[in-house]
Amino acid sequence: MSVRTPDPEPSGEEPFGPPAGNVSNPAWLSEIELAESRRRLPMLYVEGVPVRLDGMGAVTEVGILLRATPLGEMTRTIVSGRVRYGETVRDALFRHLENDLGPMAFPLLPPQPAPFTVAEYFPLPGVSAFHDDRQHAVSLAYVVPVTGTCEPRQDALEVTWLTPEEACSDSLADEMEGGRGTLIRLALASVGALR
Amino acid sequence: MSVRTPDPEPSGEEPFGPPAGNVSNPAWLSEIELAESRRRLPMLYVEGVPVRLDGMGAVTEVGILLRATPLGEMTRTIVSGRVRYGETVRDALFRHLENDLGPMAFPLLPPQPAPFTVAEYFPLPGVSAFHDDRQHAVSLAYVVPVTGTCEPRQDALEVTWLTPEEACSDSLADEMEGGRGTLIRLALASVGALR
Amino acid sequence: MSVRTPDPEPSGEEPFGPPAGNVSNPAWLSEIELAESRRRLPMLYVEGVPVRLDGMGAVTEVGILLRATPLGEMTRTIVSGRVRYGETVRDALFRHLENDLGPMAFPLLPPQPAPFTVAEYFPLPGVSAFHDDRQHAVSLAYVVPVTGTCEPRQDALEVTWLTPEEACSDSLADEMEGGRGTLIRLALASVGALR
Amino acid sequence: MSVRTPDPEPSGEEPFGPPAGNVSNPAWLSEIELAESRRRLPMLYVEGVPVRLDGMGAVTEVGILLRATPLGEMTRTIVSGRVRYGETVRDALFRHLENDLGPMAFPLLPPQPAPFTVAEYFPLPGVSAFHDDRQHAVSLAYVVPVTGTCEPRQDALEVTWLTPEEACSDSLADEMEGGRGTLIRLALASVGALR
Repeated sequence: MSVRTPDPEPSGEEPFGPPAGNVSNPAWLSEIELAESRRRLPMLYVEGVPVRLDGMGAVTEVGILLRATPLGEMTRTIVSGRVRYGETVRDALFRHLENDLGPMAFPLLPPQPAPFTVAEYFPLPGVSAFHDDRQHAVSLAYVVPVTGTCEPRQDALEVTWLTPEEACSDSLADEMEGGRGTLIRLALASVGALR
Repeated sequence: MSVRTPDPEPSGEEPFGPPAGNVSNPAWLSEIELAESRRRLPMLYVEGVPVRLDGMGAVTEVGILLRATPLGEMTRTIVSGRVRYGETVRDALFRHLENDLGPMAFPLLPPQPAPFTVAEYFPLPGVSAFHDDRQHAVSLAYVVPVTGTCEPRQDALEVTWLTPEEACSDSLADEMEGGRGTLIRLALASVGALR
Repeated sequence: MSVRTPDPEPSGEEPFGPPAGNVSNPAWLSEIELAESRRRLPMLYVEGVPVRLDGMGAVTEVGILLRATPLGEMTRTIVSGRVRYGETVRDALFRHLENDLGPMAFPLLPPQPAPFTVAEYFPLPGVSAFHDDRQHAVSLAYVVPVTGTCEPRQDALEVTWLTPEEACSDSLADEMEGGRGTLIRLALASVGALR
Repeated sequence: MSVRTPDPEPSGEEPFGPPAGNVSNPAWLSEIELAESRRRLPMLYVEGVPVRLDGMGAVTEVGILLRATPLGEMTRTIVSGRVRYGETVRDALFRHLENDLGPMAFPLLPPQPAPFTVAEYFPLPGVSAFHDDRQHAVSLAYVVPVTGTCEPRQDALEVTWLTPEEACSDSLADEMEGGRGTLIRLALASVGALR
């Protein structure tokens, strides 16, 4: 299975992005240049584990995305994407949440800049708990409460809400790409919802 | 100035508290017994630093309480109170937020059980950054976004909303009881809003 | 099985403790008074998960204590004990580490005051992941690297060093008292060593 | 003043770096290519605030580096450097600690992967508390106890050990490059050593 860190943004959405035909903006990366950089530099990512909270702040559900790969395979994942040049981590996280969960999800971004963990994806499996056959990506991972309605966009087909117990199960972990079953367990541990 | 960790709850509000005249419930502490225990055991407290967030989760304002002491002095503080026997930390934090900010504050309790810091209040000043002439109290401190309208109750007279810069100022720290100026700085540091 | 949060200190070891026969020191609790308070106030605890690190700071092993209960049953646990009146959290953690691991363990106390989680032990099972049939205890839990040799003292019989994988196993969790299998998983998650 | 995030590594030290004359290794970046990427992608950095601890784990001193810029100006900073392709965050932090503090510093890398904060350096001042006129850098910042002797190497001239109070002073912050006075305050807040 092709297992990778998603990069859902078309190049035309780059912040301060080029008008059509512009190739001279130095902050803009062509697809070819981005592919080149991916083989030479660690890529900075943000990841969000969507959760539902009860009135006392306790996590009751975890949102897992069902995604279709370019090859038509189904895989489960969380909100994940690259931080662009000139973009804050917070803005990148919000952008990817909106891309994957739709404009009515109303995510509550955490006030803390520190992630609950740093997930390191290497092209070679086994270096860490996470891998991505396409690149070396370093991801800042956050638990993000969502209060609205999720309408997945882009290549995310569906958001499934699971209990913390279901979200930590081995069977779910097996379906998740790149080792993100581990990331969900670490997320649930950070909110005291792992048993 | 009488500087102390507030204990706003009347004994009649104890969870599973006694009906009037009941003195046999072992989970209930009379005022005298509570005073005794205060000289012999560390008391467990929770504290909440109320904040307002912008749409991206960044802290824009900090809520500081103006409180009248029993002697009629004015002092500035944050939400603070004891955890009762049988009560969860989360429930205690919610109860004190509601007591101090009113029922329409709509606080968003953090999903994480870990506090941003543990503040240790000793009767003797100088042991730590915090002191309370009445007791040894250990406080789990949380940053709590509030989304509604604050109408202080009990002995809290007013909630003043300050910018992070104002909330970190030396002049505010001088007005705050028990060393809580330091606690506000640690809170703002945890959300990246301290300069 | 009698499942409880250990309280290994004899009353004579209380800090600023009484000389023999002194019953008037208000900071001193008799066994009877401590038992009374246990039914009326949450007790503040500290817990330490001993770990071995490799040269890069990654956790390679977790130290689990084998303890004999007063009834002669064997149970597995971690370093755990009460914070005394007038004692800092740091001092309490160090004291219990030395009591349970011996004077040559050379623990490296973490510089951060914030615990990786707050474990709430209730007398009634099911309120949280943790329970203690004797009391309501709230525990600040820390991961503590140890660099020396562990020689368990008091009622701790042995320290067993397990890999992170072994320490997270269901079979170990079943042997651990009061839900501390969960605490070990949360500890390992905080250091990125949970899969 | 030229204010920037240091990049002390000569290209020849790249991991899996090229033998002399090799220009075809795709994981290797020439100086020109690195300069290009700096204008198009956020660069991933690690930063370490060296500290001395007392026997109980409390921070007693903070190590500040005196560095000479290429133009011969003196500036104060902390340990800081880029994460290379294929390198773990932990390895990068260790490498930069050794580069800046020498081989006898014996740093104790923290077991937790989560940094105490994420510092975002933008070319344009004012976007965040941090800036770097050369690039968009996102830095994972850690407090790192050191137990040995520091002998600065490369362009770090000297390590000065300051008390937490001195390290938080406005006068020191004015001497520090890129807003790192704020980073030191956030570091000290995370260990409870900020007043």
